[in-house]
Amino acid sequence: MLETLTAEIIAIGSELLAPDRTDTNSLWLTEKLNSIGIEVKLKTIVGDDDARLEEAIKDAARRSKIVITTGGLGPTEDDVTRKVAARALGRRLSLDETILEELRQRFLSFGYPMPERNSRQAMVIEDAEVLPNPNGSAPGMFIEHHGVAIVLLPGPPREMKPMFENHVQPKLVRRAGAVKVLRRMLRVAGLGESAVDEKIAPIYTQYENPQTTILFNQSEIEIHLTARGRTELEANALLDHLSEKLEERLGNSVFSFAGETMEQVVGLKLSVGGYTLAVAESCTGGLIAQRLTDVSGSSKYFIEGVVAYSNEAKTRTLDVKPKLLLKHGAVSAEVAEAMAVGIRKRAGTDFGLSVTGIAGPGGGSEAKPVGLVYIALADEVQTKSRKLQIPGDRQLVRWRASQAALDLLRRRLI
Amino acid sequence: MLETLTAEIIAIGSELLAPDRTDTNSLWLTEKLNSIGIEVKLKTIVGDDDARLEEAIKDAARRSKIVITTGGLGPTEDDVTRKVAARALGRRLSLDETILEELRQRFLSFGYPMPERNSRQAMVIEDAEVLPNPNGSAPGMFIEHHGVAIVLLPGPPREMKPMFENHVQPKLVRRAGAVKVLRRMLRVAGLGESAVDEKIAPIYTQYENPQTTILFNQSEIEIHLTARGRTELEANALLDHLSEKLEERLGNSVFSFAGETMEQVVGLKLSVGGYTLAVAESCTGGLIAQRLTDVSGSSKYFIEGVVAYSNEAKTRTLDVKPKLLLKHGAVSAEVAEAMAVGIRKRAGTDFGLSVTGIAGPGGGSEAKPVGLVYIALADEVQTKSRKLQIPGDRQLVRWRASQAALDLLRRRLI
Repeated sequence: MLETLTAEIIAIGSELLAPDRTDTNSLWLTEKLNSIGIEVKLKTIVGDDDARLEEAIKDAARRSKIVITTGGLGPTEDDVTRKVAARALGRRLSLDETILEELRQRFLSFGYPMPERNSRQAMVIEDAEVLPNPNGSAPGMFIEHHGVAIVLLPGPPREMKPMFENHVQPKLVRRAGAVKVLRRMLRVAGLGESAVDEKIAPIYTQYENPQTTILFNQSEIEIHLTARGRTELEANALLDHLSEKLEERLGNSVFSFAGETMEQVVGLKLSVGGYTLAVAESCTGGLIAQRLTDVSGSSKYFIEGVVAYSNEAKTRTLDVKPKLLLKHGAVSAEVAEAMAVGIRKRAGTDFGLSVTGIAGPGGGSEAKPVGLVYIALADEVQTKSRKLQIPGDRQLVRWRASQAALDLLRRRLI
Repeated sequence: MLETLTAEIIAIGSELLAPDRTDTNSLWLTEKLNSIGIEVKLKTIVGDDDARLEEAIKDAARRSKIVITTGGLGPTEDDVTRKVAARALGRRLSLDETILEELRQRFLSFGYPMPERNSRQAMVIEDAEVLPNPNGSAPGMFIEHHGVAIVLLPGPPREMKPMFENHVQPKLVRRAGAVKVLRRMLRVAGLGESAVDEKIAPIYTQYENPQTTILFNQSEIEIHLTARGRTELEANALLDHLSEKLEERLGNSVFSFAGETMEQVVGLKLSVGGYTLAVAESCTGGLIAQRLTDVSGSSKYFIEGVVAYSNEAKTRTLDVKPKLLLKHGAVSAEVAEAMAVGIRKRAGTDFGLSVTGIAGPGGGSEAKPVGLVYIALADEVQTKSRKLQIPGDRQLVRWRASQAALDLLRRRLI
């Protein structure tokens, strides 16, 4: 295995320890670091707590070659990063007159004098390189400390990201040297979790590089490949080699090769073929239309959607005959097909796609349990439907039904 | 300030250090711990890396009274938590024949013999209490270590959550003793960020307990209150007192008091009033219908939705006159109102709600820029519309437009 530089990320701020908050800066930083061959080995999330933060910085500097902190550089009492980092590294902290003057000017340019408390943002750690922050008042710092790079970045993403890209990344690239880490993700639809693993485990277990991880999302199976190479070319070739083998084994079930969503893939196929689409939804309640129109430019192929929640709406707007509803019930292959035909006729499109089902938690019966869903696709020549029995709660049933319907269309467009 | 017990959470698994993964177990655990008066002071995310994990466990046990790890209890080589925790705590690890036999039985009940590698899941740390796992093969452990509770939980949420609730929470409640931490969230719509802060900062800054944090989400402003009390009653009274003051100041703009979403609030009001609703969407593309029908039981009041993306669909299905489209353009107050009237008539509902706008990134002009949105609400008596200019990207414009439309209906229903 090629040796890679290792980094740690410390996210600072008590708000990041609340049950409804998650640190997203570190995800962005991880991607950036990986792309230049640096691996993140540990992440710490710590509150505005002097003692714990000091320890976290000391420990990280001992273990890893690169330590990046985010947050705690603001002007208030809670913003302790500067002070604590100085203490952890055993360096003095002193006021930088140049920065202070810049801060004053910044505030004046907004039309008011700098509040006194902001002067603490001009405190600089001994021998640190100051990283300018055109998007906020908190400058960052880059400190060389016994062969370890300590980087202090502000917390707000719109300040942190450009600072990293413009001032930190170039320095780290020089340090990272030879090894490149590249990732690729394949997305799979229409196959169960164990079916996927059974098919591809005999292949991917033969490779240490790329590494393969299989993740089970709400309705998609993601195959993550991570390759290391001396060059991007080499890492890419390793990814190509393995992903081709996996694709060959999984066939049409792989719908995405570079992180595209199902709705993007379907939209591209419609667009390229010059086809138009209309959608009739019952249990998915607009989710399919919403996913399709989430893609910019979708107005080219997405013409109309109807959410026919009630039987009356199915008859009124989709021309589903009351007799059919009475005979088979709203959740049936027959009604799904009639909905697909009805919306296609109404909108005058190439394709009509429909879903009807029981999302739950109420509305199920022994004959038609929660999770029973029919999807149908109508084109000029024929109408096809599929029956699904989807496990999971309301959100999951709706999501998986929308995914299966879009996948039905995708396979038709191949 | 009342003293609270402190906890640390260590999430274990190399996959948690990828740029597209975040540790959600710790959010759930934080909420549970907070609810019984325990504060989370630090979180660590570490890969399947013996040395770093050992250090993380040692450090945590030194700093905090409660240490909870998640993950790394599986049957593979990568699952190092048992082994490393034993080493970090200086305790022996030995095979527990009872657990081994249970594992064997578990596999037999599925119809096949236990794979040999699963036997490592029967290894138990000296003097640990074994926590049963009815939902998976990895038992958890609870270890009393020099006054610190060390808890090892499995990573999969459906195994981790019931194990915590049934076997860990009761033990921690006894330990936590007197202090209770309660949280409450108010959600605000129809007011800008700075307007909210300007209104309520003079109030909330007077209180140390509850603590107030304002978060700006994509379209909602959330006011988080955290109170500490010797009893739940006391903490609740503190929350009631401050939240009443804030609500008084913010009036109708506060739409949610206990975490309900806008669609839940609107759904409840429709349900209670016995009203029915139909929705006509252009730029939101089904998002409003999807949000409304995300609420279980929504079929009672949500009758029909139409996604009229093209002008033809607006005329065909919503009876918007071509002359009107020609004269004012699809994105206009007149067309929004005609859409609301049209869908209300088609569906025969009490209310018709509509949105038309330019979500971007394409389609904007100087006269009608990206982010220009009209929303309209029709009832038996009148039709009202509102013009919005929404900053942000496509997703944000769509989300905020859907929120503003739902809020228009909410205010009508008050």
